[in-house]
Amino acid sequence: MKRRLYDLAAADGTRFSPYCWRVKLALAHKNLEYETIPWHFTDKAAIAASGQDKVPVLLDGANIVSDSQIIAEYLERTYPNEDSLFGEPPSQALIMFIKSWTETILHPAIAAMVLGDIYRRLVPEDQPYFRQTREAMLKRGIEEIDAARPAATQVFHATLKPLHRLVSTQDFIAGDAPNWADHIVFGALQWGMLTSSTALLPENDPILDWMHRVLALYGLRES
Amino acid sequence: MKRRLYDLAAADGTRFSPYCWRVKLALAHKNLEYETIPWHFTDKAAIAASGQDKVPVLLDGANIVSDSQIIAEYLERTYPNEDSLFGEPPSQALIMFIKSWTETILHPAIAAMVLGDIYRRLVPEDQPYFRQTREAMLKRGIEEIDAARPAATQVFHATLKPLHRLVSTQDFIAGDAPNWADHIVFGALQWGMLTSSTALLPENDPILDWMHRVLALYGLRES
Repeated sequence: MKRRLYDLAAADGTRFSPYCWRVKLALAHKNLEYETIPWHFTDKAAIAASGQDKVPVLLDGANIVSDSQIIAEYLERTYPNEDSLFGEPPSQALIMFIKSWTETILHPAIAAMVLGDIYRRLVPEDQPYFRQTREAMLKRGIEEIDAARPAATQVFHATLKPLHRLVSTQDFIAGDAPNWADHIVFGALQWGMLTSSTALLPENDPILDWMHRVLALYGLRES
Repeated sequence: MKRRLYDLAAADGTRFSPYCWRVKLALAHKNLEYETIPWHFTDKAAIAASGQDKVPVLLDGANIVSDSQIIAEYLERTYPNEDSLFGEPPSQALIMFIKSWTETILHPAIAAMVLGDIYRRLVPEDQPYFRQTREAMLKRGIEEIDAARPAATQVFHATLKPLHRLVSTQDFIAGDAPNWADHIVFGALQWGMLTSSTALLPENDPILDWMHRVLALYGLRES
């Protein structure tokens, strides 16, 4: 049976989940073929066999694996002959700083800009769930978030400074080739760029160039 | 001749430079003995032989090396049999993200709190130089920076989120043992803690525990 990935989809089919993007890049990194199954926030029943209710969920033969970090560790363990996702131990630990930065700083900075745009892109049955969970998480209403977008955009650009400087001086976050660190940060920005109603970065931004290098290396399309 | 390091000093002798702290930890990491020479911002003549005008400057036999990153690379090359500062290539590249984050995000967040405290701790002859260069850098006067300290303190705590989460789940930034990534971030926080007129972190903060682990491992004192 072909490898399959449950992949969060908007009403128009756009696959925008940062965590699913991480896994798609990790599968490409490991040279593994797969097909995606579009999934919506309220399709909890479809992934019940994974024992939890969020995507990504990977079906690989008899294995059902969820949570992007656990999927990456599963792929590294199961396909050790392909390029490593993590590198040797010091590298693996350092990636955890980049993961922590992405999830505690970059994700909130992106959500503060595009949360309303995401809401408006969802299938109607997902919208009440999304509004309720995200407003509780961010402690603000979607309309309030929309109204504060100019300030959030300034914060977003300030947040990107370390990445901007880094990818101006080296090809990938992990150096000469991307690894799980690149996948994690790429997923976050791809999430923002695929859902935002405005361009998040100017055309000649070194961060965009880095994203294009990642896609080109894995032979992936932009969306 | 004994290895010597020109080390920035306050009027009371406190050694507070984040870049000098990086190098002191790197020297300890490489098991290298050295003595420090206290230096002030206006002692440009004392380090003229280094071909530039900032510390750290390391004198190692006939070699005079300046710039903390270049010193670290010099130590790694010159003392390859000791523990590596960088690890293998993927690790070395990942450290550059942490360096970039420290210098573009963490350093400015700390400066926004303690710049006035640093100014007041300097020897009198350093004060006009420090005021002029730092006010130009930050585009604000020292008194303005002092007045905005409560807001800056909030930004500082938000900035530390990724580090806080990381060192709550692993012993060092580089995993089971510290490396140059730990040295860089430690230097920044040590700079803030040694100069601030108020406690920067609560006593039971996991970041403080990590700093104590770093010092203990290298057998170093707190200041």
